[in-house]
Amino acid sequence: MDEPSLIGLDWGSSRLRAYLLSRDGAVRETRSSDAGASRLAVGVAGDARAALFERQLRELVGDWLTPRRPIIACGMVGSAHGWREAAYVPCPVDLSDLHRHLTLVHGSDGLQIHIVPGASYRAAGLAPDVMRGEETQVIGALAQHATWATGASIVLPGTHSKWVRVADGRLVSFATRMTGELFEQLRSHSLLARSLEDSRELDRDAFAQGLAASRDARGGDLSHLLFGVRTLHLFGERTPHALTDYLSGLLIGHELASGLPQAPAELPLVLVGDERLCARYQLALASFDRGASAQLVDSAALGLTAVARSHGLA
Amino acid sequence: MDEPSLIGLDWGSSRLRAYLLSRDGAVRETRSSDAGASRLAVGVAGDARAALFERQLRELVGDWLTPRRPIIACGMVGSAHGWREAAYVPCPVDLSDLHRHLTLVHGSDGLQIHIVPGASYRAAGLAPDVMRGEETQVIGALAQHATWATGASIVLPGTHSKWVRVADGRLVSFATRMTGELFEQLRSHSLLARSLEDSRELDRDAFAQGLAASRDARGGDLSHLLFGVRTLHLFGERTPHALTDYLSGLLIGHELASGLPQAPAELPLVLVGDERLCARYQLALASFDRGASAQLVDSAALGLTAVARSHGLA
Repeated sequence: MDEPSLIGLDWGSSRLRAYLLSRDGAVRETRSSDAGASRLAVGVAGDARAALFERQLRELVGDWLTPRRPIIACGMVGSAHGWREAAYVPCPVDLSDLHRHLTLVHGSDGLQIHIVPGASYRAAGLAPDVMRGEETQVIGALAQHATWATGASIVLPGTHSKWVRVADGRLVSFATRMTGELFEQLRSHSLLARSLEDSRELDRDAFAQGLAASRDARGGDLSHLLFGVRTLHLFGERTPHALTDYLSGLLIGHELASGLPQAPAELPLVLVGDERLCARYQLALASFDRGASAQLVDSAALGLTAVARSHGLA
Repeated sequence: MDEPSLIGLDWGSSRLRAYLLSRDGAVRETRSSDAGASRLAVGVAGDARAALFERQLRELVGDWLTPRRPIIACGMVGSAHGWREAAYVPCPVDLSDLHRHLTLVHGSDGLQIHIVPGASYRAAGLAPDVMRGEETQVIGALAQHATWATGASIVLPGTHSKWVRVADGRLVSFATRMTGELFEQLRSHSLLARSLEDSRELDRDAFAQGLAASRDARGGDLSHLLFGVRTLHLFGERTPHALTDYLSGLLIGHELASGLPQAPAELPLVLVGDERLCARYQLALASFDRGASAQLVDSAALGLTAVARSHGLA
């Protein structure tokens, strides 16, 4: 087993995940903390903010740090509210070129961090779109299956789901869909919240009913379909548990009805993310007569390794 | 001027509005309080709840009450959490028949209240839809322009916008769209809230940009378009004030893109509701190459008068 030669950081809004990595990309050790980049230094700027980030890093993996072990980081750590802003690279971008845009940050005692840039995309006449961290997950996914680089749709479900088109080794375009965030907002704060209770085990029938409603509306009229959560409760047709899964079905169905027309059926569709959530998306895809070619749990470590290697760091 | 012969109550979730009405439907006096039906008797049932409602009524208009002056009420006062539940009447329903479904409630000292039922509608295979109070507003609108009863779309914008189809004197069908509620949720609680500030004066350009985005997406992909509120802020392309109107444009555009295909262009489209909000919908309709045939501020008093008269009460 070779000596760990790289430290990878997947430093998102709500969590910091650190990987101690071998030359071949194998994860030797993983640690994580809730020192998310968005909650770490609210209202603090400049050197003081950088010091806060450095302290969190040293607290979590201080014993991993050696002068000859490079550190590479992706995610919100590179946002305007992160350790240091790493400007977005506009799509289309050659994924093997991304390492040319690393932002080098110097800490105390010779500490150096290479931050992977986020990516931006703008369809003609529309608002821009952005990602931070998911570009690295995509690189990690392609590292596991080289043929996907020739053409694939990579879907990363979550609070802000990303639908990414890859072709000829390039990140061509992508779209963000706020599925997870809408779900949280509606079940926590809206009038619908009164009709809902947390569901421990998926109610497949209620979930399928929500999916079908959004599918049949072709992703349209969401603000109408959502009201059905209230009325199904009012008419006693679904329990508050089941209605939580109905709402989930409506919102994931809305996402699929909107995203799938841009994901050609002849290309692989790859799900990347939390295992339970991806399983739910697999069910949803089936009700749209589609399937995922693969499901990957976490590809950040592999992506960080690939970018570091392109840059001669590992 | 004839003696007031009727008391009308528009008793909604958040407010109680009382009208002292002449035989001809003219409003002699209006009073209102924040004794909304949804906040009045949370967790209180049966006689105790009824007593709470009666007390609020007597506090507001005790001096109007005489043995020979009937009282008619519409809105959430007739919901399962109201004074007394008045069951929904399913659509299609002849609007001149609605009075046959009044629920009579007896209070103390001979007090009698006639509660107008809400209406329900169920499209094949979909969740049911409901309204309470808007059926009376629709009757009031038709009272002002009898030819609308032969065929019209009545749109009542608000927290839960209602799109109502009227034909041959019947309430044929309707759909609720949670536009106002989504707007409040997103601007108060979501990640987007950080990008928004209250807009005092409508930014027409930002509003139009939001409308156009939803219109061009034909009401689809809302969860993607919403993320644009965040990115336009991130890229400094719109001020937080303007972005509030952009969000409003996205959501009203989503509502119109979904509702207008069911509102035949050859029939009148009538807006009923708050004057400023309806003015905003007028602007929005223009960007969909449609217009409203009329805009009514409040038709509840006229509607209550019409139902009471059909029932021989006034």
